Amino acid sequence: MSKKSFTPISALGEFGLVEKLTSEIRLKHTSTQKGPGDDAAVVLHAEETEQIISSDMLVEGVHFDPTYTPLKHLGYKSIIVNISDICAMNGVATHALVNLGIPNKYSVEHVQELYKGVGLACQNYNIDLIGGDTTSSSTGLVVSVSIFGHSDKQKTVYRGGAKPNDILIVSGDLGGAYLGLQILEREKEIFNTNTKSQPMLDKYEYILGKQLKPEARADVIKILKEKGVVPTSMIDLSDGLSSDLNHICAESRRGAKIFENKIPISEEAQNTSAELKTSPTLCALHGGEDYELLFTVSQDDYHKIKTNTAFTPIGHISSEKNVELITESGESVNLVEDGWDAFLKKRPNI
Amino acid sequence: MSKKSFTPISALGEFGLVEKLTSEIRLKHTSTQKGPGDDAAVVLHAEETEQIISSDMLVEGVHFDPTYTPLKHLGYKSIIVNISDICAMNGVATHALVNLGIPNKYSVEHVQELYKGVGLACQNYNIDLIGGDTTSSSTGLVVSVSIFGHSDKQKTVYRGGAKPNDILIVSGDLGGAYLGLQILEREKEIFNTNTKSQPMLDKYEYILGKQLKPEARADVIKILKEKGVVPTSMIDLSDGLSSDLNHICAESRRGAKIFENKIPISEEAQNTSAELKTSPTLCALHGGEDYELLFTVSQDDYHKIKTNTAFTPIGHISSEKNVELITESGESVNLVEDGWDAFLKKRPNI
Repeated sequence: MSKKSFTPISALGEFGLVEKLTSEIRLKHTSTQKGPGDDAAVVLHAEETEQIISSDMLVEGVHFDPTYTPLKHLGYKSIIVNISDICAMNGVATHALVNLGIPNKYSVEHVQELYKGVGLACQNYNIDLIGGDTTSSSTGLVVSVSIFGHSDKQKTVYRGGAKPNDILIVSGDLGGAYLGLQILEREKEIFNTNTKSQPMLDKYEYILGKQLKPEARADVIKILKEKGVVPTSMIDLSDGLSSDLNHICAESRRGAKIFENKIPISEEAQNTSAELKTSPTLCALHGGEDYELLFTVSQDDYHKIKTNTAFTPIGHISSEKNVELITESGESVNLVEDGWDAFLKKRPNI
Repeated sequence: MSKKSFTPISALGEFGLVEKLTSEIRLKHTSTQKGPGDDAAVVLHAEETEQIISSDMLVEGVHFDPTYTPLKHLGYKSIIVNISDICAMNGVATHALVNLGIPNKYSVEHVQELYKGVGLACQNYNIDLIGGDTTSSSTGLVVSVSIFGHSDKQKTVYRGGAKPNDILIVSGDLGGAYLGLQILEREKEIFNTNTKSQPMLDKYEYILGKQLKPEARADVIKILKEKGVVPTSMIDLSDGLSSDLNHICAESRRGAKIFENKIPISEEAQNTSAELKTSPTLCALHGGEDYELLFTVSQDDYHKIKTNTAFTPIGHISSEKNVELITESGESVNLVEDGWDAFLKKRPNI
């Protein structure tokens, strides 16, 4: 972003700012009867679909640190984390609402930068931005997003449908987003001690991307549809494998057995956890924010997606209620919920 | 609220708090396939309807002052202001999402109190609370609400449909919410000077109610439907008559003529503005937050609702583009937009 011009928001006012932000919005879906500009948005629905609605709030100092989170990335991520929830229901995201609480220290150009990220995510995922509320915030930046999507009737996937012997599958790899955050926190600390230091971040490109600019696995939903597979249960990995697997088991009233040596972890995450002297498995279990999908499929369906490299089977659902991790050394460990909790204001102990 | 027990939110964590808050939710609509408890909510739609979606964010220190805003009232109002937007599209609200950013100083009991107001509004207006996000806030309290409703196909009313000679109508009376706020601000100042003073608020009951616990005019939408009237344009009076009338005129590419002596103002608002030495007309024009409806009907439809005491005709749409107020003395004044703008952080100059 050019540092040349900074327009105070008060020069435009709320109406002027909203007009500036929404003037470039191009609506793509014929279902969008009315986007921004009236008291509310208006959307049409086909009768054979179910509407899926998700909402998340990102708060400065809790969910992101403005010192190392570019505003464009923040805007992008605020949309992605919600699309991820729509994916986790086996749905396709179509519409978004964005509410912004903007501190006085932000200029029009700052907000435009954030909106660029919002717009890019909407473009990449074919979503109509249909409105929202833009207001000032007495304190930190707040981004509250609602995303709307749909799934075919009877094909919405809930957390509670897993059956004994269903295969547990994760997409992509885990632990990267958490390790990316650790690197950002470390570099911030180094910078605070020596403001002339230049961060060396090249070798962390993948995990920093997982933290700062995650993607939602809409491609996984497409593959499952093409292969004719409807998972028996699904959740997105926002809180961490341990916590999210426990949610699936609790809702399905079942247990699970997963294997440490099956958990997919990227080489960069492996190397970084070695460098930071942490366990890559614990990062994958408790780190959160990977926005991969964790789902279960019946044994009958498993062969349809078995060869796809996007998917890794990590274990299965069991008929008892305990959630078990079999370690590399063959030990059985009870996997308790230990994800990231915004109210505890700390990352889990790794 | 009892002052006896205050449970820190960290004692429950995010999951525990959400469970406590949502455990009493009873879903009423058969269209609600899934409420809180999964990655997203799932809603069904009848094909002959259009979905209407509105979202608003209320920020501590900008939209409400916690020193005189009871949390229950705040929760109630956060739902109402959004229902009001659904009404303004000629719609019926059915579902709500509530995102909360909660400062650390708040206890579980505080949040429950806020949720009581949310629940009461949902009950009074027959709305299913289908989810949301509850997180901590590094700073002030933030309440971000999305409301969903529907209207019959082809019967959604936009701002842009007013035609020359259509009658301009407002529901209820105006200026009360603004004057209520002035009283609250005055009493706060007195209290700050003398903490032993007891506010004398009895004679302001109506206008304080309009400010602290407004209602949405869902009853008006019902009456219009019963009478077979579809307004040609409609908006809710959140920013002030002057600003909101200008929105209708701008979107409809028309002007309007309204008459000062027709603007409905309650006796209590009249008395209070005399006491505060302000003009009741200016309070009605620029005060905002009355959440009444401003709408236009064709001359042909007007007779169907003419005798209803909930409605006051205040003027008509004109073919020129200027928005005119005819004062009590017969003078014509150009009515420029001068509502409440959250970024200017001040109430308009009255």
